[in-house]
Formats: sequence, structure tokens, C-alpha cells
Amino acid sequence: MALSSEKLAELDGFLLELNRAAAGAILPLFRADHGLVDKSGAKGFDPVTEADRGAERAIRQLIAEHYPEHGVIGEEYGEDRPDAEFVWVLDPVDGTRAFISGLPLWCVLIGLRHEGRPVLGSIAQPYLGEIYIGHAGGSRLVSAAGEQPLKVRACPKLTDAIIATTDPEGCFSGAELGAWTQVRAAARLARLGCDAYAYAMVAAGTMDMVIEAGLKAWDIDAAIPVIEGAGGVVTDWRGDPVGPNGGQIAIAGDRACLEEALVALKRSAL
Amino acid sequence: MALSSEKLAELDGFLLELNRAAAGAILPLFRADHGLVDKSGAKGFDPVTEADRGAERAIRQLIAEHYPEHGVIGEEYGEDRPDAEFVWVLDPVDGTRAFISGLPLWCVLIGLRHEGRPVLGSIAQPYLGEIYIGHAGGSRLVSAAGEQPLKVRACPKLTDAIIATTDPEGCFSGAELGAWTQVRAAARLARLGCDAYAYAMVAAGTMDMVIEAGLKAWDIDAAIPVIEGAGGVVTDWRGDPVGPNGGQIAIAGDRACLEEALVALKRSAL
Repeated sequence: MALSSEKLAELDGFLLELNRAAAGAILPLFRADHGLVDKSGAKGFDPVTEADRGAERAIRQLIAEHYPEHGVIGEEYGEDRPDAEFVWVLDPVDGTRAFISGLPLWCVLIGLRHEGRPVLGSIAQPYLGEIYIGHAGGSRLVSAAGEQPLKVRACPKLTDAIIATTDPEGCFSGAELGAWTQVRAAARLARLGCDAYAYAMVAAGTMDMVIEAGLKAWDIDAAIPVIEGAGGVVTDWRGDPVGPNGGQIAIAGDRACLEEALVALKRSAL
Repeated sequence: MALSSEKLAELDGFLLELNRAAAGAILPLFRADHGLVDKSGAKGFDPVTEADRGAERAIRQLIAEHYPEHGVIGEEYGEDRPDAEFVWVLDPVDGTRAFISGLPLWCVLIGLRHEGRPVLGSIAQPYLGEIYIGHAGGSRLVSAAGEQPLKVRACPKLTDAIIATTDPEGCFSGAELGAWTQVRAAARLARLGCDAYAYAMVAAGTMDMVIEAGLKAWDIDAAIPVIEGAGGVVTDWRGDPVGPNGGQIAIAGDRACLEEALVALKRSAL
């Protein structure tokens, strides 16, 4: 069943409420003693903070109160009703490594799928007081300064593009690193270490492309409606729509720029 | 002649005034049409913005009005009286690449040398409303929330350290990249792309070490009093005091952690 604009507006308002709850759970713990837990054991460093968990609990509680029939897929507490008509896909603190380092580029990612398709999402940075929110009706930045529309910028040539990835050495396989290195060599400028905040910059038209690999659904689902609502495009490394499980992702403001990058990315596509 | 605490307090107040002037010149241009100029010509991409230039002009004008006998060394407008008793060392927008990408991690760096030695400095992020300021009497964060003292944290072991550099592939020579890679392999966690904002995180005790190379005086001078006033240490890659021209720099909250890193860094020290 198609999603009515009235229903979408109602859910848009609820998404802002979810963001307020998440911010309330997270901000007191930012740059404070945040109960660091290493969930990876001896294998590596994969920090999970009480902020992460507290925010996901707060979001799940609101969903359960207002929309008990909705499903939830979250990084910290797993899946509830993943086959429901509406499913929320959450990463309460994307960029926990930035978070524990005191860097204000971590994000709250909350997406909503309707019949399996991402239809509404937000990328929020509570310390900055910014919520980038979007759906098919358009994307906008909500902040203390009010609301302003988000629009990607034209950038048809990769040589003019500002691109980003989070951590080439840490996140890419050898073949993926080769593809990234080739795209980076052609681009005007590359930024590292931005996590999901770089998605927001593409929606806002200050960056042109983000390339990531090994993503989970909750790392990317929320961004898809924000980017698409701002006029941009999100695909996998083959140029196909992103599947329900994340993976290799390319986000661009201008499809022509993406096509140039895909020449290199396709050779390392899984 | 020794610098009196009264004179230092006066200059500390003036430094906050310089920061207000810089913020006023820069913020209207952040995430706006900022008059991008490529000052490197065909050699590479080295963006300079009108924000950078406007802020340096504003700072220089205030210094000329209040302390006409002071010297100034700035990234954009060169040297005036570099041998004066007091010399201000400026990078009005450190991290212009972050700036043009819309990322709020660029900083205003303003340092003051007395008889050649850095005695007062600030690392400011105007979009966040943060000024990290320090001298021998201590360091503090000045923000809308008031003032709070800055203190590095204990981290004697490199394996426990959160470390940072801006861009390993872009900023390090082959030998330097080797040294960084060795230090990174030993550290708990590495963050990339932070520019001078990482210095502030060391002073605030949320990160433990920053390693950079190829710095100019205006990239590092301002940070030295902030780090030292918070209890940390700034050296070159040999472990010696930083010279007047920047170069290879290591910043740490805990000297024991720095000593571990220096084992690798010394082999690539210039």
C-alpha cells in the first residue's frame, strides 16, 4: 500500500521526537565517563558505549509506545519484527570511535523502511544541534537556526569532487583499497574519518561523494532518504540499488560523478 | 625579561578578543560561497578562502591598534617584525580543506611568542563556539557553557592510546609513513582527518597523542601553550623541543606514551 503524505508527515514528526530522545540519552555522556565496553573481546577494538545502548533503549521504548506494530532493527539490541510493514533501522551512535575520542562527528542514524524500502531517515549530530532529515518530499536541516532545505550540488566530473571515506586502511579489503586509491587519485580532494556525517555533507552540497565498504544496514539505511530527498543517489559498487544488508556503498550528489567512480569501484564489487 | 602574570592575563583577554574578531570574519562564510582560490596553481590543491584572509586581516588590524610594537607571522600575509619581543603566530583557518568540505573541525590558531618562546595560545572552533586557551598558568575551555579547566589524561602505554594524524597518505614521506604505520599498529585506536582539533582533544583528555609532519610554525605554535598548560608535552620526532619553524611534531598527554612512540619516530626524524 502506498504511503500517504499525511502518514509520512506524521512519521516525520515522530522521527524528530526520536531524535530528541536519543540526544537526551547521549549528550550527558559525550566527553564524560561513558562506560566503555569492548564488545569484540581479543579480536580487536570495537567500542560500544552506554550512550549507544541508552539511546537505542530510549528510541525502542518510544516506538513501542506509539507504534507497537512497527519492527525495529538496531545495532545494539538486534531485530524485532523485521518483516513488519514499517521497520525502523537504527544506529544510535554511528562513529563510536569518534565519540570516545571527543570528536563531534558521530551521528544518530534513524531510518524507516516501508514494505522493505527506505522512505524516511535522519542523520543527526546532537552536540552540533543538527538534524538532517529527508524523504521523497524533500530533505531539510533542522537546527536551532530553524529549518533550511537541503540540496546536493552539481559536480559532473570526479576531478572536481570532494570525496570521503572513514578509514581506508581499517575498513577496506586489499582490492577495495585499490579501488578507493584510484578514485581518490582522480578526485579533487579526499576527507577521512567522517563516518556518517559525510553523508549529511553530500545532502547539504558541501561534499560530492562518499565511498564505504563493509557497512551494515543501520550504517546506511537512514541516509538513503536524506540523500535522495536532496537530489542525490545511493548505490552499491555496481551502481545497483543498495540491498537490505548494507555492504559496499557509494553516495553521490551528482550521478555523472558517481558513474566515473563506478568504473574503478565495479572491478572490486562483491 | 620575564613575563609578569599581570601582562599574561592582559594578553589572555586580548587573545579572546582576537578570537571573537576571527569568528566574526569566518562564520558568515562557512558552508556558504567562500571565494575559493587555488593558490598552488597546477601543482596541487591548496585551497585558501576569503574566510582565511578576512580573519587574518581582522586579527592583524586589532594587533596593530592595541600592540603596534608586536610582530606577526601569519599564513596568509607573511611576517611583520618577526624579531620583536612579542610575536603573534597565526593560522586563521587551520584545516581549510575541512572548511570547504563543510566539516566543523577547522580551527582558528593564534599563538603568542615572548622572546622566541610560545607562551600563550588558543585553538578555537567558532562553529562549535569552543576556545581552548592556555599558558603556563593553566589551560581552559571557554564556551557558551562557561569556562572549564583542561587536563590531559594519564595514558602511559601506547597500546591504550587514542592517536591521530590528519592524512597519512597526503602528509607523510615514505619513511614518515612507515613510522606512523608502526605507531598506529601499536596504538589502541587511530583517528584521521582532525587537523588541529586533535590537539584540543589531547588537552581535554579525550585523545592521547597526535603525530604530524611537514608543519609550519603557524600550524603548531598556538597549540604548545594549550597542551603544556593542560599538563601535556610537545616535541619533534627526536623528542626535542619544537623549533621555530614547525616540522615533524608529536603531541602527547603522557610523556611515557610519547617515549614509546619516539622509538619508531626517531628513525624517521629529519
